[in-house]
Amino acid sequence: MSVSDQLAPVLAAGGSELSRQLHRTEMRLLEVADGGGPALGRSASATLSAGGKRLRPLLVFLCGGSGEGLVESAAAVELLHMATLVHDDVLDAAPLRRGQPTVFAAAGRDAATATGDLLFSRAFAELASTGSEAAVSALSEASSALARGELIQREDAWSDSVTPERYIERCRLKTASLFSAACRLGALFGEGGSGSGEILAGFGSRIGLAFQILDDVLDVSGPSERTGKHRGTDLLDGTVTLPLIVARRRDPELAAMDLRALVSEPAQAAAVCDRIVLSGALSEAREQALGHVAEAKAALNSAELPPHRREALDLVADGVVERYA
Amino acid sequence: MSVSDQLAPVLAAGGSELSRQLHRTEMRLLEVADGGGPALGRSASATLSAGGKRLRPLLVFLCGGSGEGLVESAAAVELLHMATLVHDDVLDAAPLRRGQPTVFAAAGRDAATATGDLLFSRAFAELASTGSEAAVSALSEASSALARGELIQREDAWSDSVTPERYIERCRLKTASLFSAACRLGALFGEGGSGSGEILAGFGSRIGLAFQILDDVLDVSGPSERTGKHRGTDLLDGTVTLPLIVARRRDPELAAMDLRALVSEPAQAAAVCDRIVLSGALSEAREQALGHVAEAKAALNSAELPPHRREALDLVADGVVERYA
Repeated sequence: MSVSDQLAPVLAAGGSELSRQLHRTEMRLLEVADGGGPALGRSASATLSAGGKRLRPLLVFLCGGSGEGLVESAAAVELLHMATLVHDDVLDAAPLRRGQPTVFAAAGRDAATATGDLLFSRAFAELASTGSEAAVSALSEASSALARGELIQREDAWSDSVTPERYIERCRLKTASLFSAACRLGALFGEGGSGSGEILAGFGSRIGLAFQILDDVLDVSGPSERTGKHRGTDLLDGTVTLPLIVARRRDPELAAMDLRALVSEPAQAAAVCDRIVLSGALSEAREQALGHVAEAKAALNSAELPPHRREALDLVADGVVERYA
Repeated sequence: MSVSDQLAPVLAAGGSELSRQLHRTEMRLLEVADGGGPALGRSASATLSAGGKRLRPLLVFLCGGSGEGLVESAAAVELLHMATLVHDDVLDAAPLRRGQPTVFAAAGRDAATATGDLLFSRAFAELASTGSEAAVSALSEASSALARGELIQREDAWSDSVTPERYIERCRLKTASLFSAACRLGALFGEGGSGSGEILAGFGSRIGLAFQILDDVLDVSGPSERTGKHRGTDLLDGTVTLPLIVARRRDPELAAMDLRALVSEPAQAAAVCDRIVLSGALSEAREQALGHVAEAKAALNSAELPPHRREALDLVADGVVERYA
């Protein structure tokens, strides 16, 4: 089941207002792609309009309800997310994303780097138009965190001394920060005011953590028909994730292996994935993720939210898990 | 004579307040480098502290005088400038900048891309802290323009149909926009209020244009001892600049050459540079740049500025030209 399918009940719970908001966000993203001139139009339109789950905009609206500035916030978090995807695809020399050629593949390394920069800029322009200092600060904090997470990931590549704590910190920076910012922005502009801002930001952070952990589990478990990529891509590029960290602690022979020397092609990566699976590390990682989701949902009880939006946020949290069921 | 030498009279004209402001900007840039965590610290500190002319911060202070938000603005424009330099060095695989290893050379392509993203984010964080919507908008407009200029440059690479107008538009986006934003931010936060904002933004834009045109002239004229790079680097990477556009119109044989096929190493580029020089194109390009500087200085007459700051801005405008004398 795709996340989009799982989100159908969320959309139903959110009602026609939510559908309108998501539609306006799509329109805004298209305008940004067109407004960047023909160069951006050609290279980024496909990325911007290729869909994606729009999970972060959804969080903005579910945390905010209705209010001025929500559509701008939703567009901003999605633009920032896309900027990082475009740059990631350059770094990974990735040919496809969501079944479409990446900007890197379509326009080359140089144009893709500039396109990512442009999407970054447009994200801030969206929020600047709201006139809210708190909103711009929230986005710039998230944006700094994303880049720092990326730096730590590259710095820790191939390292055998990455602790679970260090891994979680990286996930917090690289993934959870933007989920958290989406919820914070929703609270900031929404009808409930920013009273529940911290609680909702914490909710976003926890489901972001769970999202990343489960993504890393999926990279080991596959199957590749579902993920659209080989198993063990993290192993191939040296990214040390929780499944590997846990498996190394459980399997001394695995811990003794020099993966950088041993793993250079998909078949070898798949063999190491099998070994990680056998260690039972995936269950432990999944448990951790489920724990974060449970805490996220529990925290919602103290937020001031109308029942239908709380229910929809619960569904989003469940959807993060079910994606991997 | 280096720009720094030329700026000595500007600093003298600006007095001790200007020196203090520039010093506080340096401190702020160091704090940002440290605050990004060890990963940024290692890879970007060198870039942040390697000096550079700090021409854009200078424009902020000379246009603003004194006032809250000026140091943040100066740090923001410099951080944005550095973000683009770090990404440019990745795209050009450049080993050195200002005599120091680039982030690309020191930390690799991946870390350098993330470092550039982080500097982008920190630039916006600086301005967000001022609480000024107009300031964030000015920076995001400039930031979008820079990226669009870069996209156009890559799109027009090797093209023989780039008109002077298209070239000027690219310079406006790629270079003049940030000079202009620096002046606009100065006016916004400065003691004169934003009354002269448009005039000062126009001043910045014109000297930015002149700066870029003369930079492109220097790439053809050399000497390489002074520029620290081979002549004709623009020819080697296909960047079509005003000297080449003008020379092609004056020299039909040059216009008929397929430079992409003919120019693949520095000696060949130098030969084409000689041909551009012989066409007289450099004088024509220099004239255009001088025209922009003259208009910039003339425009200052309608700005509300105390005499010592007007004089200092005149010196900055002259410095842009003298760098190439």
